[in-house]
Amino acid sequence: MLSAEDNELLTRVGPGTPMGALLRRYWTPALLVSEAPTPDGDPVRVRLLGEDLVAFRDTNGRVGLIQENCPHRGASLYFGRNEGCGLRCPYHGWKFDADGACVDMPSEPPNSVFKDKVKLTAYPTHESGGIVWTYMGPPEEMTPFRDFGTESLAPEHVAATKMHTTCNWVQAMEGNLDTSHVSWLHQWDGVDDIPDDGSDKPGYPSNAMSWKFWRHDRAPRLEIEDTWYGFKYAGIRTTPNGFTHVRMTAFCYPYNTAVATIPFGVRQSMFVPIDDENCWRYSFTTRVIDNSRGVGGANLFAVAPFRLARAEVNGNGIVPREYTAENDYGIDRDEQRSTTYSGVAEFASQDLMVTESMGPIYDRTQERLGTSDKAIIRMRRLLIAAAKHVRDGGAAPATSADHDYREVRSAEKILEPGEEWRILGTNEDPLVKEMDIAWASDRAPVAGS
Amino acid sequence: MLSAEDNELLTRVGPGTPMGALLRRYWTPALLVSEAPTPDGDPVRVRLLGEDLVAFRDTNGRVGLIQENCPHRGASLYFGRNEGCGLRCPYHGWKFDADGACVDMPSEPPNSVFKDKVKLTAYPTHESGGIVWTYMGPPEEMTPFRDFGTESLAPEHVAATKMHTTCNWVQAMEGNLDTSHVSWLHQWDGVDDIPDDGSDKPGYPSNAMSWKFWRHDRAPRLEIEDTWYGFKYAGIRTTPNGFTHVRMTAFCYPYNTAVATIPFGVRQSMFVPIDDENCWRYSFTTRVIDNSRGVGGANLFAVAPFRLARAEVNGNGIVPREYTAENDYGIDRDEQRSTTYSGVAEFASQDLMVTESMGPIYDRTQERLGTSDKAIIRMRRLLIAAAKHVRDGGAAPATSADHDYREVRSAEKILEPGEEWRILGTNEDPLVKEMDIAWASDRAPVAGS
Amino acid sequence: MLSAEDNELLTRVGPGTPMGALLRRYWTPALLVSEAPTPDGDPVRVRLLGEDLVAFRDTNGRVGLIQENCPHRGASLYFGRNEGCGLRCPYHGWKFDADGACVDMPSEPPNSVFKDKVKLTAYPTHESGGIVWTYMGPPEEMTPFRDFGTESLAPEHVAATKMHTTCNWVQAMEGNLDTSHVSWLHQWDGVDDIPDDGSDKPGYPSNAMSWKFWRHDRAPRLEIEDTWYGFKYAGIRTTPNGFTHVRMTAFCYPYNTAVATIPFGVRQSMFVPIDDENCWRYSFTTRVIDNSRGVGGANLFAVAPFRLARAEVNGNGIVPREYTAENDYGIDRDEQRSTTYSGVAEFASQDLMVTESMGPIYDRTQERLGTSDKAIIRMRRLLIAAAKHVRDGGAAPATSADHDYREVRSAEKILEPGEEWRILGTNEDPLVKEMDIAWASDRAPVAGS
Repeated sequence: MLSAEDNELLTRVGPGTPMGALLRRYWTPALLVSEAPTPDGDPVRVRLLGEDLVAFRDTNGRVGLIQENCPHRGASLYFGRNEGCGLRCPYHGWKFDADGACVDMPSEPPNSVFKDKVKLTAYPTHESGGIVWTYMGPPEEMTPFRDFGTESLAPEHVAATKMHTTCNWVQAMEGNLDTSHVSWLHQWDGVDDIPDDGSDKPGYPSNAMSWKFWRHDRAPRLEIEDTWYGFKYAGIRTTPNGFTHVRMTAFCYPYNTAVATIPFGVRQSMFVPIDDENCWRYSFTTRVIDNSRGVGGANLFAVAPFRLARAEVNGNGIVPREYTAENDYGIDRDEQRSTTYSGVAEFASQDLMVTESMGPIYDRTQERLGTSDKAIIRMRRLLIAAAKHVRDGGAAPATSADHDYREVRSAEKILEPGEEWRILGTNEDPLVKEMDIAWASDRAPVAGS
Repeated sequence: MLSAEDNELLTRVGPGTPMGALLRRYWTPALLVSEAPTPDGDPVRVRLLGEDLVAFRDTNGRVGLIQENCPHRGASLYFGRNEGCGLRCPYHGWKFDADGACVDMPSEPPNSVFKDKVKLTAYPTHESGGIVWTYMGPPEEMTPFRDFGTESLAPEHVAATKMHTTCNWVQAMEGNLDTSHVSWLHQWDGVDDIPDDGSDKPGYPSNAMSWKFWRHDRAPRLEIEDTWYGFKYAGIRTTPNGFTHVRMTAFCYPYNTAVATIPFGVRQSMFVPIDDENCWRYSFTTRVIDNSRGVGGANLFAVAPFRLARAEVNGNGIVPREYTAENDYGIDRDEQRSTTYSGVAEFASQDLMVTESMGPIYDRTQERLGTSDKAIIRMRRLLIAAAKHVRDGGAAPATSADHDYREVRSAEKILEPGEEWRILGTNEDPLVKEMDIAWASDRAPVAGS
Repeated sequence: MLSAEDNELLTRVGPGTPMGALLRRYWTPALLVSEAPTPDGDPVRVRLLGEDLVAFRDTNGRVGLIQENCPHRGASLYFGRNEGCGLRCPYHGWKFDADGACVDMPSEPPNSVFKDKVKLTAYPTHESGGIVWTYMGPPEEMTPFRDFGTESLAPEHVAATKMHTTCNWVQAMEGNLDTSHVSWLHQWDGVDDIPDDGSDKPGYPSNAMSWKFWRHDRAPRLEIEDTWYGFKYAGIRTTPNGFTHVRMTAFCYPYNTAVATIPFGVRQSMFVPIDDENCWRYSFTTRVIDNSRGVGGANLFAVAPFRLARAEVNGNGIVPREYTAENDYGIDRDEQRSTTYSGVAEFASQDLMVTESMGPIYDRTQERLGTSDKAIIRMRRLLIAAAKHVRDGGAAPATSADHDYREVRSAEKILEPGEEWRILGTNEDPLVKEMDIAWASDRAPVAGS
């Protein structure tokens, strides 16, 4: 439960808000590379942190991200002509480059110096992992680009997607820090019929067995460990055979999550605010896990009676929404009664049904939180404290170039006797050492650093 | 005409408003029984007095009416699984019974006492006459359920319907307390051609002749009599033969109306606020009138060139709206010029055209009321006074169990010389005595009493 | 750039606003005659300066323009029955004539004097040039109807149209006072291929050559001359042959513009506010130019690769919008890259794309104006000053009956050496004298004067 003031502080991200100021200290996904693929191609509207922007890829291939409305008389530059290393306003032909400089002003006399005085808001961009990232904060406070793996891998080993969500970014993110809900929302009655494949013992269980564990113990114990990037937490369950099963999820400032994956995971889900009442859920997967081991997330949905939305990503990496509030998320009440607990045919929509139905901006002044909500509570506290810290002149956490952001990892395992969940997925984890993740040796300096 | 303050007080019904507090002292229609027909069936969204609720019929057949959003983390319980005498939240499986108690909390340890501390808002319900009624006021102020006939008759003798109206409940109700508009809105030029069937004389006229009387005398004189349930009023017209024709309509706190019917009527129309800008018009008809007498409402529209919406009630008792503001209520201008006065093909839509076009919440600070608006004025004054009375600690009027609410009746008749309209439809009326209404003898105690 | 206060003052036109008070001192287009063509025909909804009105043509052919909601109980008179020199409310049959008097009140006793006390808001109307004009200001301040040519010509010589625009009226009008944008928004690359027809010399160029001049010199020098009706300004360009080309446009209080036309023009475009966020662009053309001379606006679009919206006016004179914000104005990005500068296939939609994309009410506190925006600046200053003048008790400018409003004319010409652009299109212009414009001799007194 939060006070009304803290709930406002936590959720509002427009210009001038404390949380908006915090978020603007990080390189932020602005669009997918696939949305602006070619030089001099079509401009794209981008709404980000409540600001209306236009992205364009210039003649040299650089992506500009500028204010939507022309500083002259306000026409939308989205309708501009993208040519000759700049975007021209359709109204009077004023032309702006990716840095926001006015490089041509045909409506004024050739010798006018007015052109040199006009600039528009332009945010620097950096392409990495199929995503165009931007930095919207004060230039003098610019933080280094954080490499979660996108810098050090070839494009074919990184896949980025995004999905639209019609609610505030925080409540969308809360779902990813909530291991207990997988014991209900994503369950179905047929789980009991999944055959025991022998992996209910210390080590890495199969995905199918993981479903069983979730259903078997619906009240996970949560343990939280603060880290340099935020925190990681374990959802600890007892398996049918009495072993200790851990799902470990990481939260990295300000909206990154790495959700528990067998054996460990580097997939990042980022809840990027479009404005206060809408967000994009950006995800990217980096292929650093040796899938030949026969473990990993690829077959998570093989046993489930519903689909994974990611299977239907369109050519641009954008996940189309078939199920929305308007159609009650396609809920099938008979199926809900007889088979699944949600009645919804698709994994991501199950999440969206609950998070979007909390309202555009969830009112946290009335809620009743339990022990299973510890990670959510920690995330809120960290974000609120960080926003106040930056407001008071401090630095944004988890922005240092001295860290390796590829170490923000999740994990899932049945513990050996005496095994400590806190080393799972870290560079101290024997499995991680054994797999000798390729990227660790070829890290290169990146934009903004 | 009202002051802006009184207009606000009269129309607003959300939590915390004086009028909302008054309305919450009465058992209120929440949904039709047909909308939640079977145990463990689909939950239904209910918006009532500005509150978002969910109704579900539990395993034992009891209807729960609870707050829509889960008290845990706010997911909509509309998407819940209705099973085992409770509704489970789809997010974490918290389960609530019809009393609002949390009866299962699978996300917390089995020995947790947290479950016992969590309750959600649940309103008691009572099914009667095809309607699920609820009481939304303070429990310690709960009033008895009022039997307008629904308790004492077999289901096959009660028919309930509801129709959506996109305006404030008060202005919708005002139409039912406005006998003079039947002389215009519902008229047509062909009335003059209706043959005189000889019933323009003291006694009960035919419906067809009643149409003629409305048209013949468009300026009825209104007389009002305050009653224990609110008031009843007579719209007095002179017939072509010079007799005194009376249409008597009753208003019962807070939104019940019984509109003039030949020979007398017990049909209740209730204008139940969804919120300040929408209402349901609930109606139920109880068959206590001996239709074999050849009088009564059944053939009211036999002579009119338009239809009665009720003829098109769907299987659930909900009157679908074919004509709305979006299609100008289907107005046919040529027909308006040549035949009817409204141009609208259907009786209820004629009313909706005028009441909805007054705006979402009618501004009563500018109107010019005449002598034909006396009943409307009285209703407003009574409601405003009652809301203030309850606000100041008084009891809500017309809630006592000592009254027989089946005596809220309308009537229509041509008076005998010296006959007093005030006894029409009462138990003193010779006709009522003669018909020996069945229910009067078998009244039973009901919920909440 | 304006202060926030001045921007509010400039743009808001509802009842009680200073700019609204100024605008209400002029006869204003309310609807096209074609929208209410026949006596006792269908009433029409009219929203004008933020007021909801209903227009009806009465039995005698007079157009009434009255408040939409009945003063009795607020039903919309749009649904009224238009008959016998008045509009009857559909609710109770109250009947109002075009002056707003209540001429029948059937719901009250025949001898009631209440009827005589009830009036509704009714604005006087005057039909001229295919437009129904109205005066919405204080009766004691009524100004004379201004004849821009509509009074003195036969109907077949006047053509009126209107087009809906989803933005504030001022920013829509600014486009007509902005000669520099024709050098960009309305241009295309093929202009260079238009053959030189020899008219790049002092005198009247062809329309095709005018396109070339616009493209040749994109930074016109602006000169402004205040006039009794507002101002006129010249956009001065140097032609390929080094001559001085002038486009002269007139602004007449409060929202009239006459845009540069070869050889001179009397076509009026009027930006009439529906409310603060919508306007109608009314235009009327009067055939006073001798087109047999081979000059004039008729063939303006013969050479351009896009269409003129006016060519698609529907039977009622209303220009349907095929291209709107919802479909990105049908922008064709390949065409934009290869041919036109806008990518939009139709002239008026090119303008609408830029003016509507400035937002519903353009924020003038952030803009950066150049020397080419001088006329826009002047218009704003004049309007703001006039609104303050009227607010302080002064008279509205350009309302005197002593002026001949048909002299509000535009012009376009290549100047002779020493020729003064300020006489172009005036009665001193030799061309105007030579053409002996018919109407100058048959001016008649008109309504309101």
